[in-house]
Amino acid sequence: MTTFTFEVLVTLKDGLSDPQGKAVESALPSLGWTNVRHVRVGKHIELEVEAHDEASALEQVRGMAVRLLSNPVIEDYQVLEVAPK
Amino acid sequence: MTTFTFEVLVTLKDGLSDPQGKAVESALPSLGWTNVRHVRVGKHIELEVEAHDEASALEQVRGMAVRLLSNPVIEDYQVLEVAPK
Repeated sequence: MTTFTFEVLVTLKDGLSDPQGKAVESALPSLGWTNVRHVRVGKHIELEVEAHDEASALEQVRGMAVRLLSNPVIEDYQVLEVAPK
Repeated sequence: MTTFTFEVLVTLKDGLSDPQGKAVESALPSLGWTNVRHVRVGKHIELEVEAHDEASALEQVRGMAVRLLSNPVIEDYQVLEVAPK
């Protein structure tokens, strides 16, 4: 078994209101930044999976992204493999 | 002025306990995954900045990451520029 490291990015689907992003956007002008738009806040999950091969590990991480890490109704996800050190 | 798109990843520093990551880790076995370790949950922020040039935009986003988007005492951040479409 080999250990593979992945990152999963979970972001709200386009068009949905993003209250956390709005909060950041409205805080920025008081710090002097009035030139920032379209702030979207999502989740970044890093994890290590033990598997026989890379394809199987990736398949499993996609399963986790759909079933646990994201809400597929309102969120999109991307799975990225982190190169071994 | 040009619009630049950036992603900011905010992650807990190594060694700090990550309750969200632990929650994910303890939920996975009941879904059939017992081969996952070291789950760390952080934030993924996407934003658009108007600036005269790329260097100035990047400098400003680093400033936002330190002063608003992360807590430098317990979190690390990475700033990534998204290539224009």
